[in-house]
Amino acid sequence: MAVTPQMSVHSLAPYRVKLSYLQETTSETNDEMRAVVFEAPGQVRVDERALPTIQEPGDVVVRVTTGAICGTDLHFYHGRVPLEQGAVVGHEFVGIVEEAGQTVQRFQPGDRVVGSFTSACGICWFCRRNLFNKCTGARIFGCGFAFGDLAGSQADFVLVPNADYNLLPVPEELSDEQALFAGDIFTTGYYCAREGGVKPGDTVAVVGCGPVGIFAQMSARVLGAAVVYGIDMVPARLKLAESIGSIPINAADQDPLDVILDATDWRGADVTMECVGNEAALETALRLVRPVGTVSVVGVFLEDRVGLPLGDLWIKNVTLKGGVCNVQRYWEETMSLIKSGRVDPTVIISHTLPLEDAAHGYTLFDTREATKVILKP
Amino acid sequence: MAVTPQMSVHSLAPYRVKLSYLQETTSETNDEMRAVVFEAPGQVRVDERALPTIQEPGDVVVRVTTGAICGTDLHFYHGRVPLEQGAVVGHEFVGIVEEAGQTVQRFQPGDRVVGSFTSACGICWFCRRNLFNKCTGARIFGCGFAFGDLAGSQADFVLVPNADYNLLPVPEELSDEQALFAGDIFTTGYYCAREGGVKPGDTVAVVGCGPVGIFAQMSARVLGAAVVYGIDMVPARLKLAESIGSIPINAADQDPLDVILDATDWRGADVTMECVGNEAALETALRLVRPVGTVSVVGVFLEDRVGLPLGDLWIKNVTLKGGVCNVQRYWEETMSLIKSGRVDPTVIISHTLPLEDAAHGYTLFDTREATKVILKP
Amino acid sequence: MAVTPQMSVHSLAPYRVKLSYLQETTSETNDEMRAVVFEAPGQVRVDERALPTIQEPGDVVVRVTTGAICGTDLHFYHGRVPLEQGAVVGHEFVGIVEEAGQTVQRFQPGDRVVGSFTSACGICWFCRRNLFNKCTGARIFGCGFAFGDLAGSQADFVLVPNADYNLLPVPEELSDEQALFAGDIFTTGYYCAREGGVKPGDTVAVVGCGPVGIFAQMSARVLGAAVVYGIDMVPARLKLAESIGSIPINAADQDPLDVILDATDWRGADVTMECVGNEAALETALRLVRPVGTVSVVGVFLEDRVGLPLGDLWIKNVTLKGGVCNVQRYWEETMSLIKSGRVDPTVIISHTLPLEDAAHGYTLFDTREATKVILKP
Amino acid sequence: MAVTPQMSVHSLAPYRVKLSYLQETTSETNDEMRAVVFEAPGQVRVDERALPTIQEPGDVVVRVTTGAICGTDLHFYHGRVPLEQGAVVGHEFVGIVEEAGQTVQRFQPGDRVVGSFTSACGICWFCRRNLFNKCTGARIFGCGFAFGDLAGSQADFVLVPNADYNLLPVPEELSDEQALFAGDIFTTGYYCAREGGVKPGDTVAVVGCGPVGIFAQMSARVLGAAVVYGIDMVPARLKLAESIGSIPINAADQDPLDVILDATDWRGADVTMECVGNEAALETALRLVRPVGTVSVVGVFLEDRVGLPLGDLWIKNVTLKGGVCNVQRYWEETMSLIKSGRVDPTVIISHTLPLEDAAHGYTLFDTREATKVILKP
Repeated sequence: MAVTPQMSVHSLAPYRVKLSYLQETTSETNDEMRAVVFEAPGQVRVDERALPTIQEPGDVVVRVTTGAICGTDLHFYHGRVPLEQGAVVGHEFVGIVEEAGQTVQRFQPGDRVVGSFTSACGICWFCRRNLFNKCTGARIFGCGFAFGDLAGSQADFVLVPNADYNLLPVPEELSDEQALFAGDIFTTGYYCAREGGVKPGDTVAVVGCGPVGIFAQMSARVLGAAVVYGIDMVPARLKLAESIGSIPINAADQDPLDVILDATDWRGADVTMECVGNEAALETALRLVRPVGTVSVVGVFLEDRVGLPLGDLWIKNVTLKGGVCNVQRYWEETMSLIKSGRVDPTVIISHTLPLEDAAHGYTLFDTREATKVILKP
Repeated sequence: MAVTPQMSVHSLAPYRVKLSYLQETTSETNDEMRAVVFEAPGQVRVDERALPTIQEPGDVVVRVTTGAICGTDLHFYHGRVPLEQGAVVGHEFVGIVEEAGQTVQRFQPGDRVVGSFTSACGICWFCRRNLFNKCTGARIFGCGFAFGDLAGSQADFVLVPNADYNLLPVPEELSDEQALFAGDIFTTGYYCAREGGVKPGDTVAVVGCGPVGIFAQMSARVLGAAVVYGIDMVPARLKLAESIGSIPINAADQDPLDVILDATDWRGADVTMECVGNEAALETALRLVRPVGTVSVVGVFLEDRVGLPLGDLWIKNVTLKGGVCNVQRYWEETMSLIKSGRVDPTVIISHTLPLEDAAHGYTLFDTREATKVILKP
Repeated sequence: MAVTPQMSVHSLAPYRVKLSYLQETTSETNDEMRAVVFEAPGQVRVDERALPTIQEPGDVVVRVTTGAICGTDLHFYHGRVPLEQGAVVGHEFVGIVEEAGQTVQRFQPGDRVVGSFTSACGICWFCRRNLFNKCTGARIFGCGFAFGDLAGSQADFVLVPNADYNLLPVPEELSDEQALFAGDIFTTGYYCAREGGVKPGDTVAVVGCGPVGIFAQMSARVLGAAVVYGIDMVPARLKLAESIGSIPINAADQDPLDVILDATDWRGADVTMECVGNEAALETALRLVRPVGTVSVVGVFLEDRVGLPLGDLWIKNVTLKGGVCNVQRYWEETMSLIKSGRVDPTVIISHTLPLEDAAHGYTLFDTREATKVILKP
Repeated sequence: MAVTPQMSVHSLAPYRVKLSYLQETTSETNDEMRAVVFEAPGQVRVDERALPTIQEPGDVVVRVTTGAICGTDLHFYHGRVPLEQGAVVGHEFVGIVEEAGQTVQRFQPGDRVVGSFTSACGICWFCRRNLFNKCTGARIFGCGFAFGDLAGSQADFVLVPNADYNLLPVPEELSDEQALFAGDIFTTGYYCAREGGVKPGDTVAVVGCGPVGIFAQMSARVLGAAVVYGIDMVPARLKLAESIGSIPINAADQDPLDVILDATDWRGADVTMECVGNEAALETALRLVRPVGTVSVVGVFLEDRVGLPLGDLWIKNVTLKGGVCNVQRYWEETMSLIKSGRVDPTVIISHTLPLEDAAHGYTLFDTREATKVILKP
């Protein structure tokens, strides 16, 4: 999931954000926990914070057993997105319910759960239509005041509002790591493929073989795609794409358009997906799609204005869609796929570190030495 | 429908165009007919041409009884799109089948029919999926060599290839004028609304109240839209929009965004449609749409590159789609609506002239004195 | 909405029903209200009952301003469905929020609201998929213990559980009567048409011109149907069908199949709807539908086993679907249509009586002297 | 595909069948070929017939290289469906184009092709909507006069009308056997799953593990089903189901309902499919489906009237659909899946015999000694 300056302005501005959680990490109590906090661009550290407590009757406190560092965390790490100093970060987590508010119906202490990176209210205009990603009271874990002031999950405990909507039970037979990505990046890749309308027999091209791109490719296959291309310029990522059944194309060596036109009687791919978040990647996705095909974008776009080949799109009757993932709409589908063994999301994990070593984990991830870093509190 | 220089490059280039019809207008026979021909930008005239004859077993010759001048015809009239001197123009027509090739199954001499502005083959990859607008052998009437060298229909007779796909019977109870626009602009407006996914109870905003915009508004209502806004800056067009049940917004007087946010609890319109074909109109359509809404574009875009507020689209999870109309996919639906009296497309007709006065008709239409000019051979 | 003996067995049996509301009508307090109670088959009377009070934090107490007698109420009135003596009946209501529980977010005292005939929990497996009609904790107002022991709404006040899901705001510009049926029978007719997949240009045949049948016909038009047939054998009902734009067919005078085959080139109707609830009507709906058409059933079927012409259905590739209405999924669409004036549900109202005269109202409705009886507390 | 007495009455009766092919097998020419002909119930034999020749400009003559015996062939073999003595039988074939009529566009001599078991015209009301299975001029190979008098394909050559619609190219890399079932039973199983609306994460139950049931199970997985149950009472069939990844349930040993309710929190399967064609199997499919689930039926039903638990269906809001497969709508999807290696339809082949031994093949298949018999001319 992606955090952007615009997001605060565009999606949250018109809505009142309840601030009841605002003070939680600074209260003075005897119960403390460890938490990864933002210090400054390029710096995170493990600090102590007050244990979260139930504030609203729909809240749940989760004892985190497994977390991860996400590409989104690099936005503030790189200083591209502002974040308050001392804010607890992180939004990918699996854990055990420690305490549940009085109106919570689906969960009780001891249940193992995975969290959605973004919380939804469950009853606003958008939530009533299952458009949880556009909840008017959406709040993102660990992204500071602008995104709803919800403390992050790279910590021993995390407070989850409206838990009946924002947590999902983890099937007994799954490890934490298998379930973890259903709350964020696996479901994001799946969302990209599902909303892109991939159907059996399709030829699909995915621009980007990072974690989300890999999951988009896996999801395309789940949806029946006959041929999936994984496009990137990093050999290790292309190798990973190949290992999950995709045909890798190194865009540094050959024009993906040549490959795909050759394979499709000069039509192009039925669906293309942009899983990078820059103009060159989007341009590639637009070039590769066939007439009346769909370009599905989950790479994050921050730019106010991007030049698009609109004449081409119009001539090709292309559909362009995208945006932030609707986790709560789709995570029961993805969890069901993981549980049945059809998808193994752990293939992207490269490192597992104790929570104490979070700073090292950020460095590994930032330098691309790691594809995905797990943090164990 | 729109003709663009790109179209020839992008949509027709990879495909072989059969040239069997190329010579038809120059053959020397005793049978001649009147036809409107392109002379030079700003000049058309009525000339004599050879009667068309059956060339392929799927052809039909139609005796034209009613035609019209379309906004697309202004592209070459204004010199924006090149056209061979002497080419017969026009692509909207109703008439009587004069002669039918031996494999034609649905039509026989005497049948009254309306034609699609673009001909499809019926069997290529796209046609087999009912994507007739992307037929690899698509040819457009009256648009010259680049679009398949198919003589236009502003004439006494017109040759229609693959007639079983490219003609539609006109119900007995309808006048020529009522049926005429099912073959082009009414179905284009309908396509825009249908592909935009308008559903009952929706709030819809249509940018542009020209003929296609008016038909898009009518179609939105047919699909159940509760409230339809018609946006323009020409008072006469806004009046027409109001007369068909839309709420007119004069963008010169007020920002449509204010009106629509006020009416939708600050969400925006569920579906917006661009029926103009310029960047400012598209920008308006993008601004007015709500999160997870759809922007459907049938206005023609010629530009290679247009700056779009991609960050906004991404944050709003908007779907952007558009392109040339798929007439043959939808015209049985539109004809059924016309036949039942649910839609009366004749509201846009302002002038009816004999074919001989075509040049005058072009002038009236070009100067916007006419909203729609009918030509009667 | 329909209440059946099977329903209790099939839909509620596996689920635990909370009984917290069970005692509400028998508690001894000073605050009393009037309520219509079931005495015995053929007998209802107005009695006094304790005012309902908030039991759970999501509850709302509504002061009823307008109610109605529904065809479903006749099930127990006729003794076909058992009901506890003294139970408060009724499930169609508009009113004013009197008191709201502490977790209710969308409503506050003074808000005017309409209620759904059935309450949903909002968070079970089905509710999370917007299948509110199959909520595992579904409870129906005024249908006794077997359906969740929820006191009816033919009373001065009614208690509504999970109010954020089970109430809908009434737009200021609408009368109570205009909004009332969005909570039950208008949305039921709409559900039938919407799930039946009616699309623009379709020919639709509705078997039954009672209130639900009339609303199904109105809804078919809203969805774009070109031609709608209303089939019945009661002249007054057929007249009502005609007045809303349908073509009436008196099945006592002619075989609807003859009419519809004649009008559709011998194909049959694209969609047929069964709005009666007996085998003869269903048989008619099955006969009238074209190959690859859909038969949508909202008439109530109690029978364990019904003989169907399965060979015919198979040969025609027909889709058969139906069941109880999903009010909460669709009532914002129907309310939007009512608000915009596209649909006027008050056409079915024949009588308006004070609540005190409820017994008389039941007699009028039972003898079919009334098409719909409004009760004003 | 299934041939039934009703079919001739219901689907073909209103339409005129061209009889131009009627005489083909009796003409006196020098060119003869071998063909399997129907002699009497329980008897087929290899006889000599005249070579087919092009009759209409859209025809193609195919030299058959691989054929098969289908469950449908047993209908006349068992005498349940009447067939003229001497009729050439068979409708599953792969071969090489020998000769193509003058208007055929997609095929030329030497092309390797697979045929659809049923021929469609491509231009009638149903074909224009891609509902090829309901083509008003549909004709079935090898099923005699009642089904369009089209000679069968268990022969050296077969005549294919409207070849552009009714043949599909076979990709070079596939064997005849891999491609063969795309024209009939693999696509039938796929149709069942696709029209049943199987989506990722679903639990699917397939009643019947014969060839079509096995293909339905494979197709459910292609569509993303998390768990697929294969239900039968024949151990060998259940073993085959297990080998393709299904969970086998022997209905003779346990009630499938117990298994599936246990696995789905007492909901039932999201989609169930009936691939047998008898009431008990249908009853099972209806019992196993969850509320708001879909029952998809491709098993053939001949009975005029079948008792269905309509009350249950209504209470569960179940959708029931089915009928004969729409091959031409879906076979490009299935061929793409075969080509990419995602599906291997050859798993069901148990015997390969020369065409001369057809009679022996019928015996093997009739006695269930063979699951599928290939015939090689």
